[in-house]
Amino acid sequence: MHAIAVEPGAGEPRIVERPRPDPADGEALVRTLRVGVDGTDHEVIAGEHGEPPAGADRLVLGHEAVGVVADPNGTDLESGDVVVPTVRRPPNGTNEYFDRGEPDMAPAGAYHERGIVGADGFMAEYFTSPAEFLVELPRELAELGFLVEPISISEKALEHAFASRSAFEWEPDTAMVLGNGSLGLLTLAMFEHVLEIDRSYCLGRRDRPDPTVDIIDELGATYVDSRETPVDAVPDAYEGMDLIYEATGYAKHAFQTVEGLAPNGVGVLLGVPGAWEFEIDGGRLHEELVLHNKALLGTVNSHRGHFEAATDTLAQLPTWFTDELVTGVYDLESYERAFETGDEVIKTAVEFDSL
Amino acid sequence: MHAIAVEPGAGEPRIVERPRPDPADGEALVRTLRVGVDGTDHEVIAGEHGEPPAGADRLVLGHEAVGVVADPNGTDLESGDVVVPTVRRPPNGTNEYFDRGEPDMAPAGAYHERGIVGADGFMAEYFTSPAEFLVELPRELAELGFLVEPISISEKALEHAFASRSAFEWEPDTAMVLGNGSLGLLTLAMFEHVLEIDRSYCLGRRDRPDPTVDIIDELGATYVDSRETPVDAVPDAYEGMDLIYEATGYAKHAFQTVEGLAPNGVGVLLGVPGAWEFEIDGGRLHEELVLHNKALLGTVNSHRGHFEAATDTLAQLPTWFTDELVTGVYDLESYERAFETGDEVIKTAVEFDSL
Repeated sequence: MHAIAVEPGAGEPRIVERPRPDPADGEALVRTLRVGVDGTDHEVIAGEHGEPPAGADRLVLGHEAVGVVADPNGTDLESGDVVVPTVRRPPNGTNEYFDRGEPDMAPAGAYHERGIVGADGFMAEYFTSPAEFLVELPRELAELGFLVEPISISEKALEHAFASRSAFEWEPDTAMVLGNGSLGLLTLAMFEHVLEIDRSYCLGRRDRPDPTVDIIDELGATYVDSRETPVDAVPDAYEGMDLIYEATGYAKHAFQTVEGLAPNGVGVLLGVPGAWEFEIDGGRLHEELVLHNKALLGTVNSHRGHFEAATDTLAQLPTWFTDELVTGVYDLESYERAFETGDEVIKTAVEFDSL
Repeated sequence: MHAIAVEPGAGEPRIVERPRPDPADGEALVRTLRVGVDGTDHEVIAGEHGEPPAGADRLVLGHEAVGVVADPNGTDLESGDVVVPTVRRPPNGTNEYFDRGEPDMAPAGAYHERGIVGADGFMAEYFTSPAEFLVELPRELAELGFLVEPISISEKALEHAFASRSAFEWEPDTAMVLGNGSLGLLTLAMFEHVLEIDRSYCLGRRDRPDPTVDIIDELGATYVDSRETPVDAVPDAYEGMDLIYEATGYAKHAFQTVEGLAPNGVGVLLGVPGAWEFEIDGGRLHEELVLHNKALLGTVNSHRGHFEAATDTLAQLPTWFTDELVTGVYDLESYERAFETGDEVIKTAVEFDSL
């Protein structure tokens, strides 16, 4: 079968031939429908992140997949079920994090990530997976099923944000996404259509006209140009934010977030920058965190419960939004286009097959 | 009646004469027993923090009080009840934070703090307070009742810390207090005797022999000298901390805490430093927060529920601990000694009267 694999750091992903996998006990065989591309894939391609399975020199890409069960192989699934796989797998046998259904909380070394670290991904015509890592999706959502994984990332981030404010009465009226990439826009749509935030904002650094700014406008949110209004200037220019969701990977944002928050607000951080030394007014930030009960949380990955919540969220997003968000779905013959970047590209996927 | 007041920044606290207050409707009259002294009092005395009531040039000090009801004045309290007053009061009429019993979450401007900001404190022979701000204490704890307020600060901080980790299974095995002042030692005792943390640590910068290090040893905790082991070196030198409680006001600690934490750990910040610019590896800290699901929370003040929890906690602390913690209780004639500082001083109080 065909698969899309990369030799990390060696340039472009290539089509490779792999044997169709046989499901082991407890595993189902899944025929792949679509697999999304995101920033992590680009980091893996560039060799900045991730690694192939032990002993392999190439990694099959893809961690945002949707497929259809081809062989349930004795599991509780049925042939024809549409499923989305979760990403983390136990590296050698299981461990406490997987045992309690919280692989997203496992520290480095206690997990592989399919398509990223130590395990092949889902960009192949078929893949196998233990049934416990396959989340069922209504058939009518199959075409957009590759959005479930990125939405699940935000489900977790928002669950942790709300938990951190659960010791007192807190209902966010204002919320801001830092970053107008596909994850940022998905989260902004969740602010508007699921959380029903009164006033939501999205920070970017693009000139109008721009397709992401158009989406921000159409969602009813306010676009904030970071070149004019840095995050820490947002309270003066607009208002303090009860919730800030950082999806830029720009490390200064993590610290500016403290000053962008309203009293009792929470910032959730999702970006993964590398080392970068810079100066901050650490005394002022420390004081601001304390005197106004502010919180800063990092969050990564997601577990099965977040995937399940994400399927509900996906069903609530308006069709115009997902139509504009997904700028390209390419079949295997033109798979390279799915990896192209540019201001007109928001979210792409590779299509392996249809229902 | 006698009171201890300060002209902020003008030097030493002085004994002043004030009329005995008359309780208004809904208020009780309280005969003061003891009032503790803490770092905030020293900041107020130095003029670094706080302000007198509007129109006054002096502020009566004291926010860690215990007293006995002298005149219930028609409230639900009874004469002879031992009570601890909470600290925050609504500044002009009430507001939403006070209405829902969460004055600790009120932003600047939405509260006065008795003995600190905008309202006289409890260092007087009598004080009045609305009954809703008086928390009853068992009579046998009356002598130590001035410890309820500082313990309540930690009750809130720990409640918020646990809430922030409530979306997943989290039980701290390791916990560290930054700072060996009285609040730090009280919190360390809570780690040992209330939370039953397996391995607790306390960071300071004192040479042995030292009375605070003796207490750390006797509690069964590990003393960490920050001159040898900075907070961010703790995981290598000892182990990563599931919980770090910062009570130093040293701004670099707030940021070093991120690296001192174990995966999925939380740091609660309580210090209030002033402006201080310094360099950090912001990229690394940002990444560390995200990839290991770490959290940093600021917390200030406490509400009635935290005072109630603190009375239970106070009852659980061993007598040897409070005996060693309270290094001096001074009557009005020698009140100045309660404001002396030094390595032999841990916690002091002024005694106005006895039960």
